[in-house]
Amino acid sequence: MERLDLLGALSDEPDRLTRQFAGDGMRKAHKQVATWMREAGMVVSQDNIGNLRGRYESSTPGRPTLLLGSHLDTVRDAGKYDGPLGIVVAIAAVQRLHDANKRLSYAVEVIAFADEEGLRFGSSYLGSRALAGTFDLADLDRTDAGGITMAEAIRAFGGDPARLGDDVWGEGELLGYCEVHIEQGPVLEAGGLAAGVVSAIAGQARYLVTFTGEAGHAGTVPMSSRRDALGAAAELVLAVEADAGSHDGMVATVGQLTVQPGAANVVPGEVTLSLDIRHPDDRVLIERTAQLLERAREIGIRRTVDMTLEPVSENPSVPCAPRLVSLLAKALEELGLPVTQLASGAGHDVVPMSALTDVGMLFVRCKAGISHNPAESVEGADVGIAIDVLSRFLELLAEA
Amino acid sequence: MERLDLLGALSDEPDRLTRQFAGDGMRKAHKQVATWMREAGMVVSQDNIGNLRGRYESSTPGRPTLLLGSHLDTVRDAGKYDGPLGIVVAIAAVQRLHDANKRLSYAVEVIAFADEEGLRFGSSYLGSRALAGTFDLADLDRTDAGGITMAEAIRAFGGDPARLGDDVWGEGELLGYCEVHIEQGPVLEAGGLAAGVVSAIAGQARYLVTFTGEAGHAGTVPMSSRRDALGAAAELVLAVEADAGSHDGMVATVGQLTVQPGAANVVPGEVTLSLDIRHPDDRVLIERTAQLLERAREIGIRRTVDMTLEPVSENPSVPCAPRLVSLLAKALEELGLPVTQLASGAGHDVVPMSALTDVGMLFVRCKAGISHNPAESVEGADVGIAIDVLSRFLELLAEA
Repeated sequence: MERLDLLGALSDEPDRLTRQFAGDGMRKAHKQVATWMREAGMVVSQDNIGNLRGRYESSTPGRPTLLLGSHLDTVRDAGKYDGPLGIVVAIAAVQRLHDANKRLSYAVEVIAFADEEGLRFGSSYLGSRALAGTFDLADLDRTDAGGITMAEAIRAFGGDPARLGDDVWGEGELLGYCEVHIEQGPVLEAGGLAAGVVSAIAGQARYLVTFTGEAGHAGTVPMSSRRDALGAAAELVLAVEADAGSHDGMVATVGQLTVQPGAANVVPGEVTLSLDIRHPDDRVLIERTAQLLERAREIGIRRTVDMTLEPVSENPSVPCAPRLVSLLAKALEELGLPVTQLASGAGHDVVPMSALTDVGMLFVRCKAGISHNPAESVEGADVGIAIDVLSRFLELLAEA
Repeated sequence: MERLDLLGALSDEPDRLTRQFAGDGMRKAHKQVATWMREAGMVVSQDNIGNLRGRYESSTPGRPTLLLGSHLDTVRDAGKYDGPLGIVVAIAAVQRLHDANKRLSYAVEVIAFADEEGLRFGSSYLGSRALAGTFDLADLDRTDAGGITMAEAIRAFGGDPARLGDDVWGEGELLGYCEVHIEQGPVLEAGGLAAGVVSAIAGQARYLVTFTGEAGHAGTVPMSSRRDALGAAAELVLAVEADAGSHDGMVATVGQLTVQPGAANVVPGEVTLSLDIRHPDDRVLIERTAQLLERAREIGIRRTVDMTLEPVSENPSVPCAPRLVSLLAKALEELGLPVTQLASGAGHDVVPMSALTDVGMLFVRCKAGISHNPAESVEGADVGIAIDVLSRFLELLAEA
């Protein structure tokens, strides 16, 4: 907890925590984290994208490596736990091995990813995509708010944008990637649970739906003659809410809604709304998405309001590897803790890393599900449990 | 129709019709309208606010005056009929008397009101409020987009802001005020009717309703834990629509709706929406408004979403005088036309004038209810009928 407080003070800005990719706060954080890694017996390096990596060698050289870690960057005006928690817990678990003078049958590498949130360049997962070989080189030309390109930022931070490919792991070199992260949701807290095993990262479908009716004078157009775009939109908002509420594990959100012309005395002529649907099972996600879009169409037809769709993105779900899930569950069980599995509605570095290797994830309870906010809060006792679980997981994996 | 086309070309702007209070277009329109008034045997004057007035004396001096007219100003990028139609029809009716060398037992005064739309100074009904004695002198300090005060604008147009009180009509001096206007709605067209008698100007209640729930991550907050402000707002939108749809003569509109924080991946934390409720019967208006606000409250409680109300305005309905309504109806009937009465959802100069004298109003069919738009369209035959009805009305009033 002390370490997380220390990291929470290393910011690009004086009065709040904002630690962007390859910035000043990141530079200070690297220095601090590298010290802790070395104390835990790790060999420290920085790769070409700017991830900080601490390697704890195996007893048997040449064996595949298990990756642990999370991201060191933050959103603007962030909390102290989203990202850093997973790095600090991983280092603590390695520290225990080092203190016991113990090597595992595999190497452990703790990675502090340089960018997951995408704050500086508007493109997320830079750190994990570089390792997974899915980094988009076109992103190097993106510029930050100050006009600096990503390539320049990487160089200024000591990396080499031309050599990103050197850091991609090869086939068979890895045992997997396991990340500890705050839940950023209220499920564990509601269940009275310190930690839970992530079963999958939910798939996500995003659309923009536009209803086009007819604007008209709020005083002179009778109700029976109206083609009110907002009425159609309101029906869809409630349909989305009801559908998600009646399907286990599903969340669906209308987060944006704009009304044209948007005057108090004019019947809405056009409404555009965002649709964000998530479910850990792709089959269900696809089925519910199709059903809701069909519902939007039907509302439009019934109300003689035109309906158009613009797909924004579709990300299939990322299942965690059953082997890693069951080892994490076994670790919890052996520690006498209740075992629960839950899906993650938010994306994490495990998503790009799943293209490379098996992924596993442990969620830690956070207060009221609040995240991306200075009010983010985690109990020290829960962090202790996460270290215990990860330590036991490392042993179980060695035995497996 | 030719006259309406001519007036439609007298604008403050080169490419579209915008004729604001005391502007260049108005100056040209005054010159034109004054010519027509004089041709119809009227004595023309301009009062202190800038209304153009044409007086056709009675056969018996000292008898009360009947006012006819409508407004000469327009909205920005206006149609040609909203306002000018009522002036042109009134002049045509007086022209018939003049052509027949006929004086009525009462004087007729045609008024081309200087401002009804409120485009230039954001305060409407300037012309009729000046005559009715309800002009707010504080409005004289309002400035237009160019920084000119209303007092300066009035002086520049030949009026005297210090003498507005001189133009207020006294008790017993008037028989009433009767206005011909396009319907600006689809009711007459739907009924296949050229014209209809207005029974009342609907009363209007306006509120801003704010629902405050809790913003949260669209991926991590389960549906059962959400306090989604947009869900509450959507319920209210549909309740408003259904309630208005099931009460005869009622219209109710949610024309504005804003979502905070308004990101696709964030559950809406706060939604503010406008509520505009109109009904020609104040008793029903008050009852339905209270019912809908109670409904908003109940939705908030059920969803544990806070609800706050901000009253914006409440305008009671303005009934047209039964005597004038029945004379207009009789005029239609005697011309062999079907008689229909309808309420006006929009406000008109009859609203301020009702504080001064009895008011009556005749609506003329317009195409698809379109108004405040260059596409505003009226049939010449319907305008002819309006002139016939108004002429017959003048005779019936003289006989009454």
